[in-house]
Amino acid sequence: MKLSSNSLLTINELSKNEILQLIELGIKLKQNSKTDKHIDSMKNKTMVMIFQKPSTRTRISFELSMLQLGGNVVSLSHNDLQLALGESIEDTAKTLSIYSDIIVARVYEHKHLELLASNSNVPVINGLSNTFHPCQILADFMTIKEHKKNLQNIKIVWIGDCTNVCNSLIYGCSKLGINMSIATPKGYEPKSDVIKESQKYIEIEISENPLNVINNADVIMTDTFISIHNLNDQKERTQKFLPTYRVNNSLMKKANKDAIFLHCLPAKRGYEVTNSVLDGKQSVIWNEVENRLYMQKALLLSLFNL
Amino acid sequence: MKLSSNSLLTINELSKNEILQLIELGIKLKQNSKTDKHIDSMKNKTMVMIFQKPSTRTRISFELSMLQLGGNVVSLSHNDLQLALGESIEDTAKTLSIYSDIIVARVYEHKHLELLASNSNVPVINGLSNTFHPCQILADFMTIKEHKKNLQNIKIVWIGDCTNVCNSLIYGCSKLGINMSIATPKGYEPKSDVIKESQKYIEIEISENPLNVINNADVIMTDTFISIHNLNDQKERTQKFLPTYRVNNSLMKKANKDAIFLHCLPAKRGYEVTNSVLDGKQSVIWNEVENRLYMQKALLLSLFNL
Amino acid sequence: MKLSSNSLLTINELSKNEILQLIELGIKLKQNSKTDKHIDSMKNKTMVMIFQKPSTRTRISFELSMLQLGGNVVSLSHNDLQLALGESIEDTAKTLSIYSDIIVARVYEHKHLELLASNSNVPVINGLSNTFHPCQILADFMTIKEHKKNLQNIKIVWIGDCTNVCNSLIYGCSKLGINMSIATPKGYEPKSDVIKESQKYIEIEISENPLNVINNADVIMTDTFISIHNLNDQKERTQKFLPTYRVNNSLMKKANKDAIFLHCLPAKRGYEVTNSVLDGKQSVIWNEVENRLYMQKALLLSLFNL
Repeated sequence: MKLSSNSLLTINELSKNEILQLIELGIKLKQNSKTDKHIDSMKNKTMVMIFQKPSTRTRISFELSMLQLGGNVVSLSHNDLQLALGESIEDTAKTLSIYSDIIVARVYEHKHLELLASNSNVPVINGLSNTFHPCQILADFMTIKEHKKNLQNIKIVWIGDCTNVCNSLIYGCSKLGINMSIATPKGYEPKSDVIKESQKYIEIEISENPLNVINNADVIMTDTFISIHNLNDQKERTQKFLPTYRVNNSLMKKANKDAIFLHCLPAKRGYEVTNSVLDGKQSVIWNEVENRLYMQKALLLSLFNL
Repeated sequence: MKLSSNSLLTINELSKNEILQLIELGIKLKQNSKTDKHIDSMKNKTMVMIFQKPSTRTRISFELSMLQLGGNVVSLSHNDLQLALGESIEDTAKTLSIYSDIIVARVYEHKHLELLASNSNVPVINGLSNTFHPCQILADFMTIKEHKKNLQNIKIVWIGDCTNVCNSLIYGCSKLGINMSIATPKGYEPKSDVIKESQKYIEIEISENPLNVINNADVIMTDTFISIHNLNDQKERTQKFLPTYRVNNSLMKKANKDAIFLHCLPAKRGYEVTNSVLDGKQSVIWNEVENRLYMQKALLLSLFNL
Repeated sequence: MKLSSNSLLTINELSKNEILQLIELGIKLKQNSKTDKHIDSMKNKTMVMIFQKPSTRTRISFELSMLQLGGNVVSLSHNDLQLALGESIEDTAKTLSIYSDIIVARVYEHKHLELLASNSNVPVINGLSNTFHPCQILADFMTIKEHKKNLQNIKIVWIGDCTNVCNSLIYGCSKLGINMSIATPKGYEPKSDVIKESQKYIEIEISENPLNVINNADVIMTDTFISIHNLNDQKERTQKFLPTYRVNNSLMKKANKDAIFLHCLPAKRGYEVTNSVLDGKQSVIWNEVENRLYMQKALLLSLFNL
């Protein structure tokens, strides 16, 4: 499969069929693991990664995706680059796209990704921005598929802060035709244009009360409400979100019996989710971590029609 | 070809013939690109790179040169190293030369490069110092050769701050027998010993007025006058250099019709050069970026006679 | 050989036989160097390295060990990781062990290594902690073996600050049955539980006077007394250690004629040791540096029974 879009900035660039095929390929790559036929697929191809902020899973899983497919990787933190000394994003993009076959970037401002993409001749992948985190959601759909066997007729519930991961989840659900339910405090709802655009395709239920949305949930997801973006209003956020939006066993019991719990990590344990849920039987967080690797391999192969 | 010098610190270590052969090899490598016979030439060889300051083009193009030739690379920023905690440059050099087959270093003080080289058993390449930037100039000569077909009977004009790139350009021109013309404010001239040494071989015209040197120019080059080295006197420098030494369309029109414009990047757009020149038809800045890769591959191969 | 311990945190996990076999393998790998049969032994295996503090020899030699054996490496400084933003060590360990086949970590607190190891499914190697530095000592035993031909009936003397290197040396000597002599100021002795545990197997002589221990020494070792851990009491330490615990020619003359001098580096030249000793005929410091590479290759191969 060759993806129709050159870049992946929000997940909304992908069609339903493309998302489903990526998931199938990811699962296949995971089964064949290290002995698969794609072992040298990226030979002579180069990925350049730039990170404006820390990264554990995205950094390692993308580097390994490329290395295990036989490609070259150059990873740079923001301070390694002339970008830190004022070189424009446009000139940086043009330079990176001369040297590389694919660019992965983790940035604060999503518009910087758009500038990178519009000034690059090669695919640009969003490795997380303030607004979207599409690679995480693709791996999450793969994880849901593995555990629930299908991606139809499932109820996905998001509890808590509507982060970049939530925005990409909504776009993804709108493509797959999965209705969503969200419990979040007033003022912390998902980006309004994401909601508006997605509501053309799916129903999105938003409530301030987790108990209003948890019934019949097959998938419960959350994310930290205190991240690098909001260190200043940490106190205010903690008061807003706790204890109502902490995913705990009592809330999990109100979902379907075989519901699964997802969290993109890093978790602030005891805040948005209790340890007993994170480390409990319904948690599939380590599958999510593992699936990042296989989904990103699927993405790389599909971008180059390999 | 095996270079006669083990290290490349200023460009002045190279003979005319060596520079010309490096350019030919760079052009050949660019034509054959990824399928060339050198694909595993650096197998089992290791490059260690250390960076005291940010780098975009040098870092990525050198890492890729080595990786695409089958070699290993370890890249370290200054803060990754014990050097940051006070280990001597001499001991660092000895350590690096035990583990590696070649060292590339970006430093503030040029004498630190000389210390690295004199304490190392393996080649040391200058990846930029305050005083010289030989790899940039080698790629620039390759770019000029591609566009002007020859490196004889051409007029190269440098406008503005006489940076490390300008010093290496003068040395390079003195080797190739190309006369140079420079327009720069009083007090910002190239290093006097570079001028003095080079004047034995070529004529170097220095004027305070760009209009005095621009006539018949085939190649116009400039560089930022506000770099990491001179953040403190930014205001004073801006007053000295602007508007006189800003390369703009009006100045370009006074050069030869088919003149080309070079800039090593990063550019401070609107300062030392206007956007319309940087992004105009005569600009070959993206060729310069690309040629860094091929010229450095040529350099690596020639250092090891491969 | 397959090591009985999955991880290497202190050196005390290894048996006498395992240490001796690692040394033999290290020496063999050094002789065969780059053409050995292990050239692709680590193919498809991945090492993740994390560094909480600067590293020159450990970083480069471990990266190269893995790359030269055909494996993949991802190296991250502390600030590159979500760990820097508060993700727990336990969650970091689980994540790293999903993506990698082996973890190397340089940390401040030794207990953080223990947490990494107890939460990881893959081997964890201590790349230096405040308390232990086992890889250095393994390379040092290899160096001693090369120069003294045997590791029995030799007298090893440690002069000066009883650092992490000294603690691992004591554990190593206790395994190999080598008695130790230490000269250090009161209050700077090795960790008491290390001493206590090791005294079951060997005699450990501790004196405040270097002249009391230097007689008949075959191996003299020291380490900086002013490291990143003790920048605050630099003045006090300098007064305590100098001039008594500076290894100089006069002290070396009191040892055996063919005694060798070891230092793990970085050295603070002129403090714990004079330049004339460091750079003298008895110094084997550059052999130590080189042997890090071969000993760590031996370690990697033995952890995976390759």
